[in-house]
Amino acid sequence: MKRIGVLTSGGDCSGINATLKAIVEEAYKNNIRVTGFLEGYNGLVNDLAIELTPMQVSGILQRGGTILMTSRCEEFMQESGFNKALKTLKEEEIEGLIVIGGDGSLRGAKKLVEAGVLCVGIPESIDNDIYGTDMALGVDTALNIITNAIDIIRDTASSHKRAFVIETMGRESGYLALMSAMASGAEAVLIPEIDYDIDSIMQRLKLEHERGRKYSIIVIAEGVKKTQEVAEKLKVEAEFDTRLTILGHIQRGGNPSVFDRTLGMRMGIRAVQSIINKKSSVIGLQGNDLKNVPFDVVFSNKKVFNDMMLEFARLKSR
Amino acid sequence: MKRIGVLTSGGDCSGINATLKAIVEEAYKNNIRVTGFLEGYNGLVNDLAIELTPMQVSGILQRGGTILMTSRCEEFMQESGFNKALKTLKEEEIEGLIVIGGDGSLRGAKKLVEAGVLCVGIPESIDNDIYGTDMALGVDTALNIITNAIDIIRDTASSHKRAFVIETMGRESGYLALMSAMASGAEAVLIPEIDYDIDSIMQRLKLEHERGRKYSIIVIAEGVKKTQEVAEKLKVEAEFDTRLTILGHIQRGGNPSVFDRTLGMRMGIRAVQSIINKKSSVIGLQGNDLKNVPFDVVFSNKKVFNDMMLEFARLKSR
Amino acid sequence: MKRIGVLTSGGDCSGINATLKAIVEEAYKNNIRVTGFLEGYNGLVNDLAIELTPMQVSGILQRGGTILMTSRCEEFMQESGFNKALKTLKEEEIEGLIVIGGDGSLRGAKKLVEAGVLCVGIPESIDNDIYGTDMALGVDTALNIITNAIDIIRDTASSHKRAFVIETMGRESGYLALMSAMASGAEAVLIPEIDYDIDSIMQRLKLEHERGRKYSIIVIAEGVKKTQEVAEKLKVEAEFDTRLTILGHIQRGGNPSVFDRTLGMRMGIRAVQSIINKKSSVIGLQGNDLKNVPFDVVFSNKKVFNDMMLEFARLKSR
Amino acid sequence: MKRIGVLTSGGDCSGINATLKAIVEEAYKNNIRVTGFLEGYNGLVNDLAIELTPMQVSGILQRGGTILMTSRCEEFMQESGFNKALKTLKEEEIEGLIVIGGDGSLRGAKKLVEAGVLCVGIPESIDNDIYGTDMALGVDTALNIITNAIDIIRDTASSHKRAFVIETMGRESGYLALMSAMASGAEAVLIPEIDYDIDSIMQRLKLEHERGRKYSIIVIAEGVKKTQEVAEKLKVEAEFDTRLTILGHIQRGGNPSVFDRTLGMRMGIRAVQSIINKKSSVIGLQGNDLKNVPFDVVFSNKKVFNDMMLEFARLKSR
Repeated sequence: MKRIGVLTSGGDCSGINATLKAIVEEAYKNNIRVTGFLEGYNGLVNDLAIELTPMQVSGILQRGGTILMTSRCEEFMQESGFNKALKTLKEEEIEGLIVIGGDGSLRGAKKLVEAGVLCVGIPESIDNDIYGTDMALGVDTALNIITNAIDIIRDTASSHKRAFVIETMGRESGYLALMSAMASGAEAVLIPEIDYDIDSIMQRLKLEHERGRKYSIIVIAEGVKKTQEVAEKLKVEAEFDTRLTILGHIQRGGNPSVFDRTLGMRMGIRAVQSIINKKSSVIGLQGNDLKNVPFDVVFSNKKVFNDMMLEFARLKSR
Repeated sequence: MKRIGVLTSGGDCSGINATLKAIVEEAYKNNIRVTGFLEGYNGLVNDLAIELTPMQVSGILQRGGTILMTSRCEEFMQESGFNKALKTLKEEEIEGLIVIGGDGSLRGAKKLVEAGVLCVGIPESIDNDIYGTDMALGVDTALNIITNAIDIIRDTASSHKRAFVIETMGRESGYLALMSAMASGAEAVLIPEIDYDIDSIMQRLKLEHERGRKYSIIVIAEGVKKTQEVAEKLKVEAEFDTRLTILGHIQRGGNPSVFDRTLGMRMGIRAVQSIINKKSSVIGLQGNDLKNVPFDVVFSNKKVFNDMMLEFARLKSR
Repeated sequence: MKRIGVLTSGGDCSGINATLKAIVEEAYKNNIRVTGFLEGYNGLVNDLAIELTPMQVSGILQRGGTILMTSRCEEFMQESGFNKALKTLKEEEIEGLIVIGGDGSLRGAKKLVEAGVLCVGIPESIDNDIYGTDMALGVDTALNIITNAIDIIRDTASSHKRAFVIETMGRESGYLALMSAMASGAEAVLIPEIDYDIDSIMQRLKLEHERGRKYSIIVIAEGVKKTQEVAEKLKVEAEFDTRLTILGHIQRGGNPSVFDRTLGMRMGIRAVQSIINKKSSVIGLQGNDLKNVPFDVVFSNKKVFNDMMLEFARLKSR
Repeated sequence: MKRIGVLTSGGDCSGINATLKAIVEEAYKNNIRVTGFLEGYNGLVNDLAIELTPMQVSGILQRGGTILMTSRCEEFMQESGFNKALKTLKEEEIEGLIVIGGDGSLRGAKKLVEAGVLCVGIPESIDNDIYGTDMALGVDTALNIITNAIDIIRDTASSHKRAFVIETMGRESGYLALMSAMASGAEAVLIPEIDYDIDSIMQRLKLEHERGRKYSIIVIAEGVKKTQEVAEKLKVEAEFDTRLTILGHIQRGGNPSVFDRTLGMRMGIRAVQSIINKKSSVIGLQGNDLKNVPFDVVFSNKKVFNDMMLEFARLKSR
């Protein structure tokens, strides 16, 4: 094998650059050169290729984001675009492709595999919603950022009967909201996966305040689409002095945590080895081990919360 | 002098606890005991008094919030409540009162002075909108938190044509928005004090994107009340992939910066000395020096931005 | 079961308070009350007992250190002290004891079990040197603190031919040094478990400098006891402008990471359940699962590095 | 004026890159181009010149270190090297030079002025030991890093009779040690400028421990050269369980604080204006204003501590 390609295609997250560094170094150890495609699948479709050498990935390990850039690419999903991508891979003499990305990006990779491309996926998604891996790249960093933000709010709160409503990312997944609520000891949490009862939550918070609780923290996943409504209800109906925080894109980044760095490095090395061994698959963390999870398995299952998370969610969503 | 009182009455901010520690220690050095009133003026009206000893303020220097708690107190603004407050001060044998708080709280202090109470104000407001002091307590910490958040967003951004809209605190003041925009190199800023032109900003950002800028950061003060509108416009009219962050209460806190700690300690010591010297006034930082600014001066003037800030604001708000 | 006891006895680390909170809340859910013994085994020997209620563990989740304090206790290791400890457990009507601590503390727990006490251990050690658990409490936080410190040094370094020597904790274990070196991309690492060759490292660093590397980062575990010597050699023999950082106790703390919070909470709940089920053992994280590891197993094995860590160590220690 | 030069020549510190960005942007606003000399005076002597355009300084505002690199340059201090530097300035058609650096670097600038070069200095030194400016660039960031480190140690400490000895930078200046000790509430501080009495400190700490203090924090400036000795004494004579932290180079960096960013930006703009106005001088912050301080004034005076600092130092150094 002489040359492999790599692209990064999900939402921004922390740890991708560490992964790229490991991929390039592992490839060079095996005398394989690396082409980076810019802006996700757009780089495949429109042949935006750069040479990735160990020199070029030096000093990026601790940086957020991705030096290869990301973007959405509608064209790739259409036949003409897809064919252009296949042509690029041929012309650039790519013998195997590594795709770092979320659910949609890995579906793109699966399509390439079905078209005969040797392709390995590395799951990256701060929502941790990809089946087959206990943790996706970027989750740990995102969780720590959210939890630190809630810590700051809690440490500073010094007024009675105040409610802090914090919206986390997660359009279809409540993972970040649930885990950060647990890790920060939030009083209530609303996520898309679990039935919640806003009125019952309000009654509970009011009761707790009467019993002496100074203030309450309510974490809401973006996908619930009730953030403004809950904030308004807490203000008007429960008469809490209510404050809103929408964390937004700060959840995607900053310097990656040690967990995300080492996870990315391990997955990157494993991805190169899988390409060498011709194993098209998604690299998944299961317990302490990395596994080659077939694309079919990844897409035919849905990730579920563990019992501790479920119990916390049930307690805190009503 | 045997006993002084202290209360904290503004919005939460970082550095108040360091100030309280300095007040208690300076008072004890002068053989004066200290009564803390809980929950701002509510503690005066309803006599919620605790003894503050050096032991009780040990270990609080680096904590956000205020151990004395804060709250709004409508009752104090009415005659009956105000008289109850005066009665409390008499009964608790308070010979001088230190009020740590923002504009409204200092107006309360002024009213007490007019009623014959020896009273010194310490200006605390993350908006830095109190005349007579170059910096109010809590501003530096708030600015660093906002700027770090924007840094994270900038470091991670790796998509083309994306706009990040960040709302900072500041209902009537654009100080935080303007300074953090400057310190983080934001592309645009909207504040209440300066005329802005959203359409012109959009044209400029689009042009910059065409010339190669990857993404844009727009900082908006809460008081502009245009955050949602601007985000929507950028998405629909300018076709940016737009992401919103509302920083909310994380701006009020966390561990205070060194600047806020030492400012609070200096102001606290000066406040005790001013009480001893019977100088009712607000402690103001002017250049490197602390001054006793008369209450009248504080309320009869409006703080203005310096030239560098004005120029940046004009450049970036159209 | 009516009452259990808990003590914290290892070196300080982050996540213990979250564990204590979970223990108290899980105990109360099962109508069990909790006695906290202060200052580790000293609290058992000298009956320093406090009642731990949900109220008392409220607000401690995010704090470093331990509200129960720790200390060394020689007396407990002697027969007279040990008997006093047994007497205390009887008099305080403790039906089961949870010990949060490192290797030495868990050996104390084993001794109690052998004397007929129902006792469960929670492994806590930033060195991650306890067999039977993939991660001990406090490791993840320590690693992130060290790695952030190295990031800062790397980001700032802007001089040619400079060597930064960083000493991490780890008297007998190189885990922290090795993992932080890997996560930060250090150029060299010295740990007690792996043969190193200082002269060979120096030759390599000099060569890399000649080829263009600006500066080098060398991480050394405390237990190697060569920090000063290596720094001196790099300065004198290799003529690097050498700077030393000894991170010391900042590695033990600050707010715990999300990983350490949730690990502590899970282990705390499991420990209470194990006490209820009369399973004297050490709680170990294995893959994603918590296991009840017999004390014998914990002490009759030695933890080893995984292959990725070994390869990195070998590459970077010569 | 068509072209100015800039070099960075002190120890690394945070805020230099923000200053460089402001210099380039202000120069371009005035239709002046900018040459950057690499590696401090070495770049002048050996003509290591690069073109600095607004594009090249984009995205560096929040980075620590300096993109122009620094180094020591003995050659510049000798006549032959100095003449080569003058020749470079002539050949590169530099009409004015901005030097960002510490005491030694500014002395080099003075020498250039005496040789007829139009030269403006920007004071940069985490030790804050440059006369004529209240704050040098980099001080605020360094102070916050040190103080945060001490906070972490304090938050985690949970053992009785432990002494934490923390060494800060400062070979001839105790500013960082003194200010961080004050901002973190340290129990003792040793700096070169103030007489200290180690035995008296030990007696005091022992007494405080007997009265209930759990642990003590002692901050020592590097220049005192007593760190090891004090740590040993505390361990052996006072029988404290003593732990040592040498912060080293993490004090030089990380992302600059808002204060250092805005100070650097203001000084950079002022430096360009001073070059345009042909005012060879050092830019000093005095109160809120920037001043053009003559080189003679800078070097003929010594900076002194203010009264609050002196009193704290006296209290805590015996």
